[in-house]
Amino acid sequence: MVVDESKQNPTEGDAAQSKKAAKKLAKEAEKKQKKAEHKAASQPAEAPADEGVDCSVGKYGTMKLIQSTGEFCDRIFTDVKTLDAGFAGKNVWVRGRLHTSRAKGKQCFFVIRQQSSTVQCLIAVSPESNISKQMVKFCGSISKESIIDVEAQVVRVTVPIDSCTQKTVELHVSQTFLISPAKSQLPLLIEDASRPEKSDDPEALKIRVNQDTRLDNRVLDLRTPANQAIFRLEAGVCKLFRDILTAKGFVEIHTPKIISAASEGGANVFTVSYFKGSAYLAQSPQLYKQMAIAADFDKVFTVGAVFRAEDSNTHRHLTEFVGLDLEMAFKFHYHEVLNTIGQTFTDIFRGLRDNYAAEIAAIGQQYNVEAFKFLDPPLRLEFPQAIEMLKEAGVTVGAEDDLSTPDEKLLGKLVKAKYDTDFYMLDKYPLAVRPFYTMPDPFNKIASNSYDMFMRGEEILSGAQRIHDAEFLTERAKHHNIDLSKIAAYIDSFRLGCPPHAGGGIGLERVVMLYLGLDNIRKTSMFPRDPKRITP
Amino acid sequence: MVVDESKQNPTEGDAAQSKKAAKKLAKEAEKKQKKAEHKAASQPAEAPADEGVDCSVGKYGTMKLIQSTGEFCDRIFTDVKTLDAGFAGKNVWVRGRLHTSRAKGKQCFFVIRQQSSTVQCLIAVSPESNISKQMVKFCGSISKESIIDVEAQVVRVTVPIDSCTQKTVELHVSQTFLISPAKSQLPLLIEDASRPEKSDDPEALKIRVNQDTRLDNRVLDLRTPANQAIFRLEAGVCKLFRDILTAKGFVEIHTPKIISAASEGGANVFTVSYFKGSAYLAQSPQLYKQMAIAADFDKVFTVGAVFRAEDSNTHRHLTEFVGLDLEMAFKFHYHEVLNTIGQTFTDIFRGLRDNYAAEIAAIGQQYNVEAFKFLDPPLRLEFPQAIEMLKEAGVTVGAEDDLSTPDEKLLGKLVKAKYDTDFYMLDKYPLAVRPFYTMPDPFNKIASNSYDMFMRGEEILSGAQRIHDAEFLTERAKHHNIDLSKIAAYIDSFRLGCPPHAGGGIGLERVVMLYLGLDNIRKTSMFPRDPKRITP
Repeated sequence: MVVDESKQNPTEGDAAQSKKAAKKLAKEAEKKQKKAEHKAASQPAEAPADEGVDCSVGKYGTMKLIQSTGEFCDRIFTDVKTLDAGFAGKNVWVRGRLHTSRAKGKQCFFVIRQQSSTVQCLIAVSPESNISKQMVKFCGSISKESIIDVEAQVVRVTVPIDSCTQKTVELHVSQTFLISPAKSQLPLLIEDASRPEKSDDPEALKIRVNQDTRLDNRVLDLRTPANQAIFRLEAGVCKLFRDILTAKGFVEIHTPKIISAASEGGANVFTVSYFKGSAYLAQSPQLYKQMAIAADFDKVFTVGAVFRAEDSNTHRHLTEFVGLDLEMAFKFHYHEVLNTIGQTFTDIFRGLRDNYAAEIAAIGQQYNVEAFKFLDPPLRLEFPQAIEMLKEAGVTVGAEDDLSTPDEKLLGKLVKAKYDTDFYMLDKYPLAVRPFYTMPDPFNKIASNSYDMFMRGEEILSGAQRIHDAEFLTERAKHHNIDLSKIAAYIDSFRLGCPPHAGGGIGLERVVMLYLGLDNIRKTSMFPRDPKRITP
Repeated sequence: MVVDESKQNPTEGDAAQSKKAAKKLAKEAEKKQKKAEHKAASQPAEAPADEGVDCSVGKYGTMKLIQSTGEFCDRIFTDVKTLDAGFAGKNVWVRGRLHTSRAKGKQCFFVIRQQSSTVQCLIAVSPESNISKQMVKFCGSISKESIIDVEAQVVRVTVPIDSCTQKTVELHVSQTFLISPAKSQLPLLIEDASRPEKSDDPEALKIRVNQDTRLDNRVLDLRTPANQAIFRLEAGVCKLFRDILTAKGFVEIHTPKIISAASEGGANVFTVSYFKGSAYLAQSPQLYKQMAIAADFDKVFTVGAVFRAEDSNTHRHLTEFVGLDLEMAFKFHYHEVLNTIGQTFTDIFRGLRDNYAAEIAAIGQQYNVEAFKFLDPPLRLEFPQAIEMLKEAGVTVGAEDDLSTPDEKLLGKLVKAKYDTDFYMLDKYPLAVRPFYTMPDPFNKIASNSYDMFMRGEEILSGAQRIHDAEFLTERAKHHNIDLSKIAAYIDSFRLGCPPHAGGGIGLERVVMLYLGLDNIRKTSMFPRDPKRITP
């Protein structure tokens, strides 16, 4: 132990410490370790006396709580996903979950799962190999989802094992230790939670696990191969967003979530008790992004929690979600920003397609995932074009009306049919349906320099050129009947010289949901929050 | 305009749209643009009538609000930081802030600042060059911190301009437009806010800008070269943290900030009104990180806001800060995790030193920044060693006592003197001073498998091996007199099989503060929150 440690921390070695002292310490440690190992080994499973002499003593049992004693630190483990015929004949240690188990007379077949990978294991009574009846029985008694260590020989199989991801080999087990038990009655089974939704087998439909059961038992639910992949892909979206913007010269900032005044007028905002007063949870980082622009950071992004106290119980609303926000100064036209955002999306989609193919495939095993189509550069339509397309499809939308959710979905279908893309940008929204700080269009008094972006017909970004002039901002706020005293600080921040700028906010969970074509945003939030759920 | 757009969006071109129609659109756009340009150019400064004919009409003035008309989009701008003798003789457009300005008879010297870069500009009355008295006067009248566009010839200078970052050239201005004015009475001057703190000139000390004035006017304060660099470096710490861990196989997760039960016992937690009920703001993502481990994510990190309702008004406490948290399953010894964290820090320090030298130098212009010393691999000490070192220095700490803040600082100095490092890990804290979920040491009943990490003698990470066994966790919670009913969900999450794991939480703002040796955490939080401040 001490020897290992001092190897890793040579600097720790005090110059004054003699070699002799070090040797002494090493010896003591060795003694300690041997003693500990003996203790562990001498803790066998509770074998009933009537089964005779147990020739497997010390080769199986419940491992005592791993408390970092220094024992077994030299044991080398092999990842399940790497196991293939190249390992044939070798002895390996594997730690994983007991996925399924089937005891049958003198043998027990079981499957070990490690994240999305599975391998078949076999243990059979064999006096020559010192595998006792008791040991096989012990293996058969371990409850599913428990974490176990096995030592085993890797054996090539002649018939591929279809039920496992590692099809060419199985493990012939010589030692088994229970590391951490799962309770025997689980609230859901991983097999059930993993069942393909696309299956039209009525039996399979019956044993589907419903959403609330999944979310109530999220620790179990997250173990399905699809969920393992969904959250790795979600991490990928964040990574791509940040890497792409950083390469374009953006700076990451962090904005406060606790704010003194409701950022967008006071509706739908959570109140926090703050010492003797009260405060609010930010609905967006917009004011702070804009302040960073006024403070010369030029191009900024931020990734963080945003909060909406909306009592919306839909498939696409959360009360807390992860915002991917960006804001950027431009020289003369907000399309400098619009095109930057559009290109960022195209690059994210390309990155997902190229670097997360395995995750997308794993999710496709459970859900109907249609490949996401995108164009490079992305499609930009203007609002009147959208109205025209909808009109042609028989839906009338007024020139100053917003699009309803069904309109947006229909439009998504029309755009897909015409342009073969699941992503597009809709520019030039009516001024009347946008917030007061939106820059009006310079030529068309009913239009504005604002845009939404869509994936599979659902909005995932809303943005605009912001008004960067305090006087004009005041005028627009008055026009919207906004109480000027409540937004004085916001308006004043534009009296210190501010470049023209535009930006937008993206909902991470929506991007992942719509990229994959999933039907509920709760599938892409690890621990979702909605009006009815704040646990686990 | 439309031509440009369709170039950027070739996919937008409807197949049905004929070339003829496109040409027509282009022509219309050109007409529109010309009209707009004429309008802009014909908006001169308000020159008093008695100054005679103005030969500079159209070459200066207040630019009308930039509303994305399509005008001037072909104007190419040059970054101040790139201006050097290589540009001599060339004409450039520059957009930046008026940093300082000095009108003197028929000429006006001014400095344009762009983030941390500055360049000297000169405009002088010259009938040959069509530079009028009125134009020079206009330039002299622009208030500091306004955003301006200038067109100018780059001229090499013979005597280096010490007061600017671009020392070898100056700009001889031919056009000047005010893009966004700053009000004339600013609450603080960037020159004052940038003044070196290390200066022992008593005059300089007098005109220092105090912290509250800075924070009340953060948009201005953030424009100083030191602040521009501090927040770029902070972005660098986040980027390095994530990149290093991602390369080690960690997965980024997002954990909820709104929680149903106070995560660490209920003290120091903010309450949120949640629809008809109430909830809390998470003091740490710990439970969720641990659940992710129990859900087989193996190694996870998360970067996000954490909240502490502590009424601590010190140089190093915030009520909201950015947590860099990680959690990792291990096989047999938590030092697998400890060493991973330690190496992550070493790699971050190396990345900052190698990739952020310019930022560190810029901060050093204002503050005393001593180079941060670190070892590779990092130093690990054990708690009894720390007590011994303190004892030798005349300070007595009990074997089961925690270290006080002064003890920690002294220890930092002793460690620096002995090992020449500003970073070290202190392992094996007394069990008595750690939370109930901390794994006890297997050999020493007063010790635990827990650690803190320090930078320049201040704690920046606290972590431990967590108890992953529900029964033992219950036993420890009882020992701490914790109400079991309040932590039932936490304990139950370990009944589904959980690998041994350890982790830690890092305060981002503290890391940046201590890396740079700054004296207050408010210097490294863009919009700090403390018991007395939730604005701006």
